[in-house]
Amino acid sequence: MSQTVDSFSFAKRIPATPSIGSTTVTKQDHVHLSFGFAAPHLFPIEQLSQSAAEAVTLHGRKALQYSGSVGPGQILKWIQARSQVHGIHVELDQILVTYGSTQGIDLATRILVEPGDHVWVESPSFFSALQAFRTAEAEITSFPIDEEGVRVDLIEHALLNAKQNGKPLPKFLYTMPTYHNPGGVTLSVERRKRLVQLAEIYNFFILEDDAYSELNFTGNRYPPLYTLFPERVIYLNTFSKIIAPGLRLGWIFADSNVIAKIKLLNLGGSIGVFTQEIVAKLLDGFAFQEHVDSLIDHYRQQRDVMANAVKNSFGEHVTFHLPEGGFYIWLRFADEVNTSDFLEDAANRGVSFVDGKSFYVNPEGFQYARLCFSYVSEDQIVRGVQSFADAYFAYINKAVS
Amino acid sequence: MSQTVDSFSFAKRIPATPSIGSTTVTKQDHVHLSFGFAAPHLFPIEQLSQSAAEAVTLHGRKALQYSGSVGPGQILKWIQARSQVHGIHVELDQILVTYGSTQGIDLATRILVEPGDHVWVESPSFFSALQAFRTAEAEITSFPIDEEGVRVDLIEHALLNAKQNGKPLPKFLYTMPTYHNPGGVTLSVERRKRLVQLAEIYNFFILEDDAYSELNFTGNRYPPLYTLFPERVIYLNTFSKIIAPGLRLGWIFADSNVIAKIKLLNLGGSIGVFTQEIVAKLLDGFAFQEHVDSLIDHYRQQRDVMANAVKNSFGEHVTFHLPEGGFYIWLRFADEVNTSDFLEDAANRGVSFVDGKSFYVNPEGFQYARLCFSYVSEDQIVRGVQSFADAYFAYINKAVS
Ligand SMILES: Cc1ncc(COP(=O)(O)O)c(C=O)c1O
Ligand SMILES: Cc1ncc(COP(=O)(O)O)c(C=O)c1O
Repeated sequence: MSQTVDSFSFAKRIPATPSIGSTTVTKQDHVHLSFGFAAPHLFPIEQLSQSAAEAVTLHGRKALQYSGSVGPGQILKWIQARSQVHGIHVELDQILVTYGSTQGIDLATRILVEPGDHVWVESPSFFSALQAFRTAEAEITSFPIDEEGVRVDLIEHALLNAKQNGKPLPKFLYTMPTYHNPGGVTLSVERRKRLVQLAEIYNFFILEDDAYSELNFTGNRYPPLYTLFPERVIYLNTFSKIIAPGLRLGWIFADSNVIAKIKLLNLGGSIGVFTQEIVAKLLDGFAFQEHVDSLIDHYRQQRDVMANAVKNSFGEHVTFHLPEGGFYIWLRFADEVNTSDFLEDAANRGVSFVDGKSFYVNPEGFQYARLCFSYVSEDQIVRGVQSFADAYFAYINKAVS
Repeated sequence: MSQTVDSFSFAKRIPATPSIGSTTVTKQDHVHLSFGFAAPHLFPIEQLSQSAAEAVTLHGRKALQYSGSVGPGQILKWIQARSQVHGIHVELDQILVTYGSTQGIDLATRILVEPGDHVWVESPSFFSALQAFRTAEAEITSFPIDEEGVRVDLIEHALLNAKQNGKPLPKFLYTMPTYHNPGGVTLSVERRKRLVQLAEIYNFFILEDDAYSELNFTGNRYPPLYTLFPERVIYLNTFSKIIAPGLRLGWIFADSNVIAKIKLLNLGGSIGVFTQEIVAKLLDGFAFQEHVDSLIDHYRQQRDVMANAVKNSFGEHVTFHLPEGGFYIWLRFADEVNTSDFLEDAANRGVSFVDGKSFYVNPEGFQYARLCFSYVSEDQIVRGVQSFADAYFAYINKAVS
């Protein structure tokens, strides 16, 4: 069997030996600080159950049919109205509903790049996005982040250098300007302005991934890049962090010409009418702002518990930026530390985290670790961080001895 | 705005001027013989409404979370069990749930072809599939069908010729062996056997699209190509014709190594857990065989009504193959007829159909038209076919005078 399969030459985007499947041990009592998942107890289950039944009964024949390339308008209108709260003004033909923002990343990548084209990313970056760029057979170059987000000065320097030396410019830059995953940082307003200028000057697109935009713990506001340059920013967002990821519903904002191009890839007509109708029904009459406020209160509290736990358990051994929103704390250890080396011991002690190198294109970032405070309870955070610290101290003591 | 967009060079897969949007006039009272849609009154709305509420309430937190790359097992088990009725025996790692078979076509294409690779299809073929191959930047070659399905002898001849002359062989052949869309024909058992032998000898894959498999009007059985050569056939099916298309749920069967490769593209973990849980709940305890039997009775009756209406309205002016299953009657007019030329007049007379050329890669097939009997009522079929005939006779009378 495998022999027959092996004799065929698959597309280059597909590695010869796929390595799939999570290796995380899922013991009872295991604390998953690795999971970037929304807190399930905050899913609006009852309302959704009711909306599901109602939507099917009321709009069943429509909700269950093919729907052309547009899908039901109600959810588009909700997205349009809600985005105004964030200063984004779009027409309906500038919106496309997707199977989560993960599909948005994939679709945008496929309209923008040919195999061999260049994509620039942040280091660290979101691993599913990196995987999408790899399967598009793009050449990936990365630029570091600091406390104020990605180093736009380095990007500018690289662009100038490429231009002067006739080297390839990027087709697009993928960035998470607000509440970065995993970095927890937010791009400053100055850098935002410069970045979109660069996109104009050097003729590239920006893929703005704004998955955590609603989870704003401080009230500080940053203009989405899309609002600064709607012609050259493809903006991605999702219901995954604000309603539930299992719905697989997200959206893209872009120039209507760009949306039209993306629709050409969106084969089989519009996506998940059934789910769209159910979610539209949910949102209709749902106290969304209250819901988001309770998410914010919860996640902010979780962040604080985790930040304290880290200080208590690690003392001066780590540094981190306190995130203004989102799900993650990104720990930096001393440069000689390699967090991959105590991943397994931590798992044996009942806690999972993601080691730094997983977020990089090149072999680097070993001295970082991502902890996620969204999925676990306060009690688990304290216990999990302590077990993680135990694994770390055992590791450095071994290194010393 | 458009200027900024136009100055960018998009991936070659994207045509410069997208032409999207249906041009079909949707008047009240218009008869849509063009829509290849399931009959909405046969959707199991009430059961689905109940399953939706129950699934969310019972499995809500699970159904709404990310689910890793596999998704809930229940629906896989249902698909596995049901397929045994059709002689297909698969392990769970040989199944992947997709967003309809349209996504299945796209995923299979992306693992198999690089831009410039060759894909062979039937002429006529399914237009969404052709669009998927074009966006993969494949070179497409087509082979005619007759009453017994695709002309495997011509495929064999072309393979031999390519081999002898060092010309490129196909990466895969896309085929709808059973109840072809639009042709209505079914591939004979002899040709099935030869086709899989050719796939083995010439080292290509077969993409077997079996979307209509359950809608068997005669009881005749044909072995799916997948059962003849599971290592080299990627088999696609869907809930669209047997439950409802708005769910966007389909599946792939393939060698487990091939499934593993496809999963690498299936970014964002498994698809639509929410929908999968709801459909699994529906199927659990649903009298599926009875449901399918009632679909078959209904569609067979519709086919007969349409076949009679065509005979009554067109007499000797058209020929067609009476389909053993599926949704379509494929009309052949005299060679000098161009059905595109009376599309608009037919629309003005209140009926839509799909003109022949839409199903071809090259400019051909003008003398054909596809009528679909699934979506409309018996009364509409009779009226629609008569209006269609009126448009045709007006067209040929004009040509003569
Ligand atoms: C930055 C970022 N983008 C996208 C996603 C995925 O979102 P979706 O569930 O909409 O595919 C995540 C989820 O972890 C994320 O962190
Ligand atoms: C041959 C064929 N394949 C696939 C499809 C699409 O199926 P799905 O709704 O599962 O994407 C259709 C629907 O018209 C079809 O006719």
